[in-house]
Parts: sequence; C-alpha cells; structure tokens
Amino acid sequence: MTGQDFQAWMQEVQAGVETALETLLPPANAVPHRLHEAMRYTALGGGKRVRPLLAHASGALFGAEAGALARVASAVEMIHVYSLVHDDMPCMDDDDLRRGKPTVHVAYDEATALLVGDALQAQAFAALAGIDSLPPARQVAMLRLLAEAAGSGGMCGGQAIDLDSVGLALQREELERMHQLKTGAMLRVSVILGALCGKDLAPPELEALNAYAKAIGLAFQVVDDVLDATADSATLGKTAGKDAADNKPTYVSILGLDQSKELAEQLRREAHQALAPFGEQAQRLRELADLIVQRKA
Amino acid sequence: MTGQDFQAWMQEVQAGVETALETLLPPANAVPHRLHEAMRYTALGGGKRVRPLLAHASGALFGAEAGALARVASAVEMIHVYSLVHDDMPCMDDDDLRRGKPTVHVAYDEATALLVGDALQAQAFAALAGIDSLPPARQVAMLRLLAEAAGSGGMCGGQAIDLDSVGLALQREELERMHQLKTGAMLRVSVILGALCGKDLAPPELEALNAYAKAIGLAFQVVDDVLDATADSATLGKTAGKDAADNKPTYVSILGLDQSKELAEQLRREAHQALAPFGEQAQRLRELADLIVQRKA
Repeated sequence: MTGQDFQAWMQEVQAGVETALETLLPPANAVPHRLHEAMRYTALGGGKRVRPLLAHASGALFGAEAGALARVASAVEMIHVYSLVHDDMPCMDDDDLRRGKPTVHVAYDEATALLVGDALQAQAFAALAGIDSLPPARQVAMLRLLAEAAGSGGMCGGQAIDLDSVGLALQREELERMHQLKTGAMLRVSVILGALCGKDLAPPELEALNAYAKAIGLAFQVVDDVLDATADSATLGKTAGKDAADNKPTYVSILGLDQSKELAEQLRREAHQALAPFGEQAQRLRELADLIVQRKA
Repeated sequence: MTGQDFQAWMQEVQAGVETALETLLPPANAVPHRLHEAMRYTALGGGKRVRPLLAHASGALFGAEAGALARVASAVEMIHVYSLVHDDMPCMDDDDLRRGKPTVHVAYDEATALLVGDALQAQAFAALAGIDSLPPARQVAMLRLLAEAAGSGGMCGGQAIDLDSVGLALQREELERMHQLKTGAMLRVSVILGALCGKDLAPPELEALNAYAKAIGLAFQVVDDVLDATADSATLGKTAGKDAADNKPTYVSILGLDQSKELAEQLRREAHQALAPFGEQAQRLRELADLIVQRKA
C-alpha cells in the first residue's frame, strides 16, 4: 500500500497543479467571459490529476526544472480535460455528470462545450510553448510528442476506434490497442514529458519509461472497467454502469471480473519491474502504479 | 485587378498545399480508417486556401525555407478546416453544405465530426513541430503564436463572442473586435508564420505585416458579409443568407450594403499602404488583398 509520505506528496502536487492551471488558464474577467469561465469551471477544482502526478513523479526522477514541469503538468491535464468535455457531449457519451459536477454542456450549453474543448486544446500547446527554461530543440520535441499523443495516432484515434466498436465483440488484442491509444498515449506522454523537463533521455531510459507507461496505461483502463461494473455513480463522480448500458466492450465483458482484477495486479507488477533500473529514486512512479490499480474511483 | 502571373502563382501554391496536406495528414489506410478518411475528406480537394496563400506570399517576401513554409501553410489550413467542421455542427451553425460538399457530420456523423476537428487541431501542431530546418527557438515562438491565434484569445474566443451576440445589436467596434479574433487572428498568424520561415522579424517589419494583416482580416469579413447577403449558395459553396436568417449582426446589417462595399475598398487601400516599406517585393501580398476584396465567393 501507499504510505503517508506519498499521500502528502500527492496533495502537494495536486495543489501545485491547481495553482499552475489557475495561472495558465485565461482569467474569467478576460473577454470572452463566458468561455473563460466555462474553461475554468471544468479544469479547476477537481479530478485526480493522474497525468500531472505522473509528470511530476517522472520529473522528480530526472531532476526536472520546476517551472517547465508545472507547464507540462498543466498541458497534459488541459488535453485530458478537453477530451472529457467533448466526450461528455450528447453526440458522444451524452453524460451529464463529471467529477461530481454537471458537465459543461449541461451547466452551459453544447456550443460552449465544443469551444471550451477546442480552446483548452490550444491552451495546452500554448502552455508548453511558453516554457522558457529548457533547450528549444528539446521543447520542440516535447510539443511534437504532445501533438502526436493527442491526435489521431493517439487519444483522438482511440476514441474513434471506441466509437466504431460499440456493439462489436472485440478481441482482447483489439480492446488493448484501442485503450493504448485512447488513454495510454496521454499517460505515456505525461511520463515522458515530465522526464524531459530534466534531461534528454538515453534510449534505455526511454525504453524503461515506455514499458512502465504501457503497463500503467492498460492497468488504468482495466481498473476503470472494473470500477464501472462495480462502483456507484456517487463514488465515481460520473455515471456508473455506462459501458454495459452502452453495449461497449470492456475488460470485464471479455475476461470477467475476477480475471480483470488479476490482470490489473499483473500489470502493476510489470510496471514495477520496468522501473528496476532506476532503483529507489523511482519510488513515486511505483506508488502511482499502486494507486492506479488500488483506487476505488 | 490581378494578373495572369498571379493566377498562375496561386494555382501553383494551391497545388503545393494540396500535396503538402496529402503528405502531412495520416493516410486513410492507417487505423482508425474512418477518422482518417473523414479528416482527408474535409481537408483535401477544396477551399480557397486563403491562409496558405498568405503564408506563401509573406514567405516569398522573406526568403522562406520551402519545407518549413509547406508545413506552416498546412498547419494554418488544418486549424481553419477544423474550425469549419466544428462550426458546421448542429450545436453551432448547423450547416450541411461546405465547399460544395456535405459537411462532415452529414457525410459521416456528429461524433466523427467532433473527433475530426479535434484531431486536425492536434495535427496542425504536429505539422509545425515537425519542421526541421529552422532554428528551434524560432520554431517554439511559431508554435506559441499558432496556439494563441487558435485559442480563446484568438479564433475560439471570436467564435464564443459570435455565439453570445446572436440577436444582439452590436456596435461596429464590437463587431470588429469579434472578427479580429474569429478570422483575423488566424489570417494574421498565417502572414507572420510565413515570414518567420525566412527570418526573425525586426519590429518595423512585424508592425507592417500586422497592419497589413489587420486590414485584410477585416476586409475579408466585410466581403464575407456582403457575399452572404448578395450571392447564392451554389456560388458560395455554402448556404447563403444564413446570417440574416440566424439574426446575426453583420457589416451589412450595421452599415448597409453600399457602405460595406466602400469599407472593403478602403481596407484594401490600407493593406497596400502597410506594405509600402517592402516595395515591389510585396506584390503577392498586394494581389492577395485585391483578391480578398474582389472575390465573388
């Protein structure tokens, strides 16, 4: 299990992310007020901040520059939040509850939700492009990695496969591929970008981080599926049981509940193994792998 | 009027943009097929390519590196196309015709249109981040300019003001502000990014290009309003008369038709004046100002 020290670190990072987002999002009193207010409504004051936590844990391992890391953590969270806002829209998952609050298209309207997502994506790239403490060549590489992880070869692509697979009996390999794009790509890039705030990565370092990120990415999704099938909406802060209701293929529908839980545990061990070369210093990344598998929401 | 030489140049640039987009967009046979097919459906084979033309005209003036310029032209066009796809969706303008073809949510579905727009935005940043022939520090500055022009302080912000102003009697200054964000920001950044493919800009050069871009940005919108009020859908390749039907404030509704046409002509002259310091070499930018004001669609 994760210790008290880890809890304190998480809370510190989460508070720092909140402050960074507060600063990097346009103020609500800037024109257009309603758009900025809605961007802040959805991005601030909630969420587990898993991607920023990964960036910070990985950054700590490589001596990341603090200002750059704050922008990286905000950028990956902005991309994540925009994807949630668009996902929740009526033409996608049609969800009216997110992080325990009404979704943007419910609290505002659909057109605003569309623009909030669009503007948050642009803001994420602005946040990353605004780093002034890293070598520009590395910064360009980071912007490219973020664009690739967010685009049709990453997150958007995974969502498209997800859409196309409703009602289909996916094989486990196809389901895995979908999730590696849909959530895996952004989790992975969070780990890598955090590290790049410290130094250029040697190939074995990159390989180890990729193996870790791949394992926790899948574990994250397996646990999501388990929670969707077992937890209630109040605990999740979003509508539970949606996957079955929407006839979406999940790990639980393919493997069953027990085997899904076993798979998550196996992926947690794989994540730990991938971190072996980094020794004790990778403790935060290990604890995050544990958190991802053992979380209740 | 614009000469034969200019027509040939335009066609050459447009063909080059088509080729660059063909290359920079993911192939339709890459997973997810349907998303990539829809991205190509909407981005390829149509459009006036005004933003790429501006980037090329400005790039020519500053000796732009060809590979970088092709990526800049593609990036600004991808942002523009994504904004059209999202704008046309039922929750925004609900339009079913664009560039003479069914819009993405009609030809595919709404969820796909949402993802096509999201993925095109990411792809635009990937295209710009993939330039390998410019000093990285300048490239970072370019990525930042694009993010700012696309986001809530630029294009998305203008669209939000547009949404909020339906049915309101805007003053001319408010209408101008809206358009400077909604279309002006991306037109301006197209001019600036094209120039930056050649060299870092001295403050007076930047100022002159900004003045030019501001004038043509407004002219573009004034002419759009004139055409919406006077041309037919077949000529425009999109639904004509939408603004009046949607009760949207336009230059024509505020100034009347004749004064709107006069304003466009005045802005054309201002654009020419702004280019005076560049002499003969800015001929393409002058011709584009003429084209923007004299176009029939």
